[in-house]
Amino acid sequence: MDEFSLIEKYFDRPVTRLDVSLGIGDDAALTIVPAGYELVSTVDVLVAGVHFHESADSHSVGHKAVAVNLSDLAAMGATPAWATLGLVIPEVDGLWLERFCAGFFALAKRYEVDLVGGDTAQGPLTVMVQLSGWVPQGTALQRRGAGPGDYIYVTGRLGDAGLALMHINGEIDLPPDQATAVQQALDYPDPRVEMGERLRSLASAAIDISDGLAADLGHLVTRSEVGAEVSLAHLPLSKPYQAHFDEIGWEAALSAGDDYELCFTAAPGHHPEITSIAGQLDVAVTRVGTITADRKIIFVDRDGHGYAPKTAGYAHFRS
Amino acid sequence: MDEFSLIEKYFDRPVTRLDVSLGIGDDAALTIVPAGYELVSTVDVLVAGVHFHESADSHSVGHKAVAVNLSDLAAMGATPAWATLGLVIPEVDGLWLERFCAGFFALAKRYEVDLVGGDTAQGPLTVMVQLSGWVPQGTALQRRGAGPGDYIYVTGRLGDAGLALMHINGEIDLPPDQATAVQQALDYPDPRVEMGERLRSLASAAIDISDGLAADLGHLVTRSEVGAEVSLAHLPLSKPYQAHFDEIGWEAALSAGDDYELCFTAAPGHHPEITSIAGQLDVAVTRVGTITADRKIIFVDRDGHGYAPKTAGYAHFRS
Repeated sequence: MDEFSLIEKYFDRPVTRLDVSLGIGDDAALTIVPAGYELVSTVDVLVAGVHFHESADSHSVGHKAVAVNLSDLAAMGATPAWATLGLVIPEVDGLWLERFCAGFFALAKRYEVDLVGGDTAQGPLTVMVQLSGWVPQGTALQRRGAGPGDYIYVTGRLGDAGLALMHINGEIDLPPDQATAVQQALDYPDPRVEMGERLRSLASAAIDISDGLAADLGHLVTRSEVGAEVSLAHLPLSKPYQAHFDEIGWEAALSAGDDYELCFTAAPGHHPEITSIAGQLDVAVTRVGTITADRKIIFVDRDGHGYAPKTAGYAHFRS
Repeated sequence: MDEFSLIEKYFDRPVTRLDVSLGIGDDAALTIVPAGYELVSTVDVLVAGVHFHESADSHSVGHKAVAVNLSDLAAMGATPAWATLGLVIPEVDGLWLERFCAGFFALAKRYEVDLVGGDTAQGPLTVMVQLSGWVPQGTALQRRGAGPGDYIYVTGRLGDAGLALMHINGEIDLPPDQATAVQQALDYPDPRVEMGERLRSLASAAIDISDGLAADLGHLVTRSEVGAEVSLAHLPLSKPYQAHFDEIGWEAALSAGDDYELCFTAAPGHHPEITSIAGQLDVAVTRVGTITADRKIIFVDRDGHGYAPKTAGYAHFRS
């Protein structure tokens, strides 16, 4: 099977969106951004052996390739629309491709995202997804915008993906039901797209937590030229995390990364509405701290003592 | 140097376009497509050891990563605007990155393309560029649209990139000046962006020649549901090609690929205007044949005999 047959068999699916004039099958795709809207674009690369294990179920690789990009769009408050895919595979493995596509298209369909273009090549397994969406002009959430006194929120629970990795690496030992639960958080992150859209008019700043809360809140306060005080006792930790807290401490929640939750800030006056939206969307939203004028982040533990995260969050090439 | 410093040092350059609201440094980029225009998106992957030699000068890798995408936009008649970059590198090699960026940004600047986002990771050397541009709504060139009687044109010269590869592989022996000339065609393809833009209102169909004329004209006639008759004697061949024609024959021009020229069709009545534009842009445009109603491609050699290309053009995964 050559690349043209491969694309036709696995990737060239009927266009479902009215704003796609031309999808896969030409030199480029044609799409229409509604008047009065800004285009929002993000790209993420997943490399086998770095972002996922070579032997990982390709269903989760397909899911995650879409999810991590959806999470970036969610952090901007954007509505997802179109994807392009760069796929490098060592060989044409029908089963691998079928499961990859099943994971990829299931999540894409859930958010009405059409795959409109791509490129495939032979080489070391690498997946690059570029995702586009849109926001009404001037309404996008950004990392800058947080002001002193704003509340700091996070969605979902923090650190479960990190727990899964620690379990896989033998650093902690979880019973099967807990291992399954945290593995799900690692393999099938649930991007907070609807939450991001609802926050457009409410949040003062936002970022997605892909490198860990400490690092990503750090990016947010740096861009916003403010500081933050975070109460560790308020960090939303899962039951498996709580059960192993003595072994793990705060590190997985603060620095392991791969959570794909949102961290956002909002004026205190919006607190009731944010709580109400969280209920409507059935997404946990937890206030974890407050933005300060001092340009530093302080983590305060249960006893009121300052806590310094031991690691700085995930970054490639760090020696 | 971690990935954040790397991005800041090499890739986070000042935005130059007024339609970029937010460039590198947030979860996603924000850009504005002008009202009445369609967004045109393409992506290409370059893998070390497949698309370029591991030891290739990264200046040409940077150039080519942009050029192959510009060529796709040119084939749509689009005006380029924004790029995102997925870059996987085995290690942080300052010299490699500097030369890569020099090649990348020199060509991007020439076409007023801003790099608005990206992702870097550690792994086997792979470059993925996604490029966006726009066309006035409904004016994009496509592979479909060619009609019987339309003239078939190609820009530039065909087969020089193929010659360079044959020289590198020791299949032919070129004198130094000829080797340099064809190597330039391989390493620094010159995308036909202005030509594509000018052809919006003239061409009935277009494609870029990345897999070889035989394969790419094949895609065009398949989509257009027509056929073609091509006169081999009219194929534009460079002096090095002509000098070695007895060894090479038609194959490099028809099937080697990597040419990044445009193949397009137009009604005969547009011939004078097309010739005039070619002169204005100083780009060779050669009529090589005619679209037919019969759904097959016929290549006719100098003696009026039919010629069947020996290879089918480049495709990944072909066994």
